[in-house]
Amino acid sequence: MPRVSPERLNSRRREILAGARACFARHGYEGATVKRLEEEIGLSRGAIFHHFKDKDSLFLAVAEDDAIQMADTVARHGLVQVMRDLVDDADRPEITGWLGSQLEVSRRLRTDADFAKAWEDRKQAIATATRDRLRRQRDAGNLRTDLPVEVLAEFLELAYDGLITHLAMGSPAADITAVLDMVETAVRRPA
Amino acid sequence: MPRVSPERLNSRRREILAGARACFARHGYEGATVKRLEEEIGLSRGAIFHHFKDKDSLFLAVAEDDAIQMADTVARHGLVQVMRDLVDDADRPEITGWLGSQLEVSRRLRTDADFAKAWEDRKQAIATATRDRLRRQRDAGNLRTDLPVEVLAEFLELAYDGLITHLAMGSPAADITAVLDMVETAVRRPA
Repeated sequence: MPRVSPERLNSRRREILAGARACFARHGYEGATVKRLEEEIGLSRGAIFHHFKDKDSLFLAVAEDDAIQMADTVARHGLVQVMRDLVDDADRPEITGWLGSQLEVSRRLRTDADFAKAWEDRKQAIATATRDRLRRQRDAGNLRTDLPVEVLAEFLELAYDGLITHLAMGSPAADITAVLDMVETAVRRPA
Repeated sequence: MPRVSPERLNSRRREILAGARACFARHGYEGATVKRLEEEIGLSRGAIFHHFKDKDSLFLAVAEDDAIQMADTVARHGLVQVMRDLVDDADRPEITGWLGSQLEVSRRLRTDADFAKAWEDRKQAIATATRDRLRRQRDAGNLRTDLPVEVLAEFLELAYDGLITHLAMGSPAADITAVLDMVETAVRRPA
């Protein structure tokens, strides 16, 4: 076996993840066959599955990347800003595809306990970032104080899940900006 | 062909719909094969598809029944009450199954324009009932008046879609009652 430097391994992993992400976005989870993954990534299945055990692992690795990036945005700008960004980008093909694959996994989540556990772990970073930010905002006097941070967090998460469904189904959301303003106002300190 | 009275035809239709509803709830949309539909309904595929063109028509007829019943509850008690009822019933098997089939069709909605159109027509009655009730509540002085009824309606629909996702995925919703109180308060006139 040839020696491969850790840097090179890491860049190969990133290359595979980028191709896999594009493939899942284009074809959905079910539609992203191993053959299509090979084509989009530009590597053989042997090379791909040397780095990732199987298609599930690949999908969950992409999801982990998403979760890290999303947790970072939540920490800096809040979950409502993540929603606003999604609305702005909803007509870009890679976002539409990503939204679709979110809905597709929902079926797996209901029927596959191991997959659900792995997915839940990925989402944990976002949940923690949401609550940390809400606590900081409350301490800064920006939030309503009559409800626990946990309730405010679950309210925002309900709105987020609703938005994913709306956008993935391509629902007309004429007033979505005003609706997100309502969501934001509902957790803030009354003026 | 034997003469069948309209009443009998109607009762046969209701019988088929009840069995189909149970079958979709138990097995999901994909899992409800024609064989399983025959078993659950207790009629041959010939008898079933004499009344409904195909499995899609059957599914959409069940969805239409749901929509009529839901529009009625919305008209009388509002969309937030529909959400509260769902939370109360979320652990009943027929509700869990129904929630699952809602998520399952989301994929069809994104890829099948005819199906999406038929589904949209079914949802129209609920959308109209939601807006009618909000207008009545506004006229009675119960709603905030700084935002159009359309924005309040879309806000409630976002929360409803989020709730369906949460419940269908069996997410722990420890504070869901407090969250729904927040949703309701957000559309009401400030105390």
